[in-house]
Amino acid sequence: MDSKRLTPVAQESLQRLQALQRVRVVLCGTSHPGNIGAAARAMKTMGLTRLLLAKPKVLPDEQAVAMASGADDVLAGLKICPDLATALEGCVRALALTARRRELAAEPLWARDAAVELAGAVVTTVENEVALVFGNETSGLSNEELAYCQCWAMIPANPDYASLNLAAAVQVMGYEMRQALLGKQPLPTIPDAGMPATHDEVEGLLGHLQRAALGSGFLDPANPGRLMLRLRRWLARSRLEREEVNILRGLLATFEHPCKR
Amino acid sequence: MDSKRLTPVAQESLQRLQALQRVRVVLCGTSHPGNIGAAARAMKTMGLTRLLLAKPKVLPDEQAVAMASGADDVLAGLKICPDLATALEGCVRALALTARRRELAAEPLWARDAAVELAGAVVTTVENEVALVFGNETSGLSNEELAYCQCWAMIPANPDYASLNLAAAVQVMGYEMRQALLGKQPLPTIPDAGMPATHDEVEGLLGHLQRAALGSGFLDPANPGRLMLRLRRWLARSRLEREEVNILRGLLATFEHPCKR
Repeated sequence: MDSKRLTPVAQESLQRLQALQRVRVVLCGTSHPGNIGAAARAMKTMGLTRLLLAKPKVLPDEQAVAMASGADDVLAGLKICPDLATALEGCVRALALTARRRELAAEPLWARDAAVELAGAVVTTVENEVALVFGNETSGLSNEELAYCQCWAMIPANPDYASLNLAAAVQVMGYEMRQALLGKQPLPTIPDAGMPATHDEVEGLLGHLQRAALGSGFLDPANPGRLMLRLRRWLARSRLEREEVNILRGLLATFEHPCKR
Repeated sequence: MDSKRLTPVAQESLQRLQALQRVRVVLCGTSHPGNIGAAARAMKTMGLTRLLLAKPKVLPDEQAVAMASGADDVLAGLKICPDLATALEGCVRALALTARRRELAAEPLWARDAAVELAGAVVTTVENEVALVFGNETSGLSNEELAYCQCWAMIPANPDYASLNLAAAVQVMGYEMRQALLGKQPLPTIPDAGMPATHDEVEGLLGHLQRAALGSGFLDPANPGRLMLRLRRWLARSRLEREEVNILRGLLATFEHPCKR
């Protein structure tokens, strides 16, 4: 993409999209190969690509590939490091995920606020790299590992059962990083969507409904109440397509004049 | 809990917590038992308990129990329904998750906005029940299933790889429902946290630092610049504990007067 030709707004958007490539996901002391694969899949769905394993207890195997389910490029690009310090080389900010408040801890932030802070750090310059750091499946991050991280985050969870699966935690944090960096993106367009009905077409249907309701005796002209208003509100909310209006009018016509068969 | 004795704010909070129990998670046509267990775990971490399987292709087995990892109560309470319509009986609102925009579709919302809307529906009365509806792992929801749902949501994802694992999608939507219903909860307290240092203690440390810096010649009294201001800012940010102040002052004292060993 020729970024020099983009408008300032599109340029800003592209830079924020590229910033996702500078967010590392560091898994410390991971015990299950399946979790490595599932984490890779979760990352890729959110546009994250850089996976690092710090002092892993296992290496990715065929189970990891199965769980990655199409995110094998993330898995193929992963880096194995002897410890967390090595995995963080070159990072300006590391965010540790923790399931509980800990002694010796910095003040944690809720996941959403922490993602906004980390997003701020990664976009400050186009060289900045940051990391999301996740602990071992059973014991979490050690106090030594936590001490390498400048900020700490908790995912708001059920206090009686806060045990998110490792890949699930990666999914939630990746989701929050994507939201923090990209904000509300325009919704994708619907392929082959029907033409929306015009105001006149909807009014035509309402007029038809009213005539039919009068004809059937449902609507008493001496005492109409708010029936038509309620019908109009309902139709406005339903965002009719032109073809649906035609179908409904066809149906109404048969109510008024049943087909002889 | 005796809810009659709660303050109005706590009462409101309790009602919103209880509302999570009225959010069903409906999995349609699920193909893998492991996904059912992983979904149960994801639900429980977010305080959701009511799992329904609509026309499942498989039933939970020992793999489901393994993946549920402690959320076996959610699994034990699940309800199996012949179809989505049965699973939605008694619901006032059903939110369908979809990975792409679809023909014949209502306007989708992004996950966060959709969760806020669904949360609004479930708290309107204490009887209201709502549903999050998830499709089959490969093909998603059928057009017929989608037509039972009043609102549709998309999880913002990498457009080139939007394939979240089923349990990962349940995790993200459960997370957003919890956030929408409970908002920002107070952070849990730190067990055995150290006593924070007082203002005076931090100022005492700063004074000590200044004396030591003057003594060492690092700080030039004729040209102090902004050194002390920068140190004060740094210490404020680091939220010192009393014991840490004592340790630092002990250290400083040895810089001023090295121990003879």
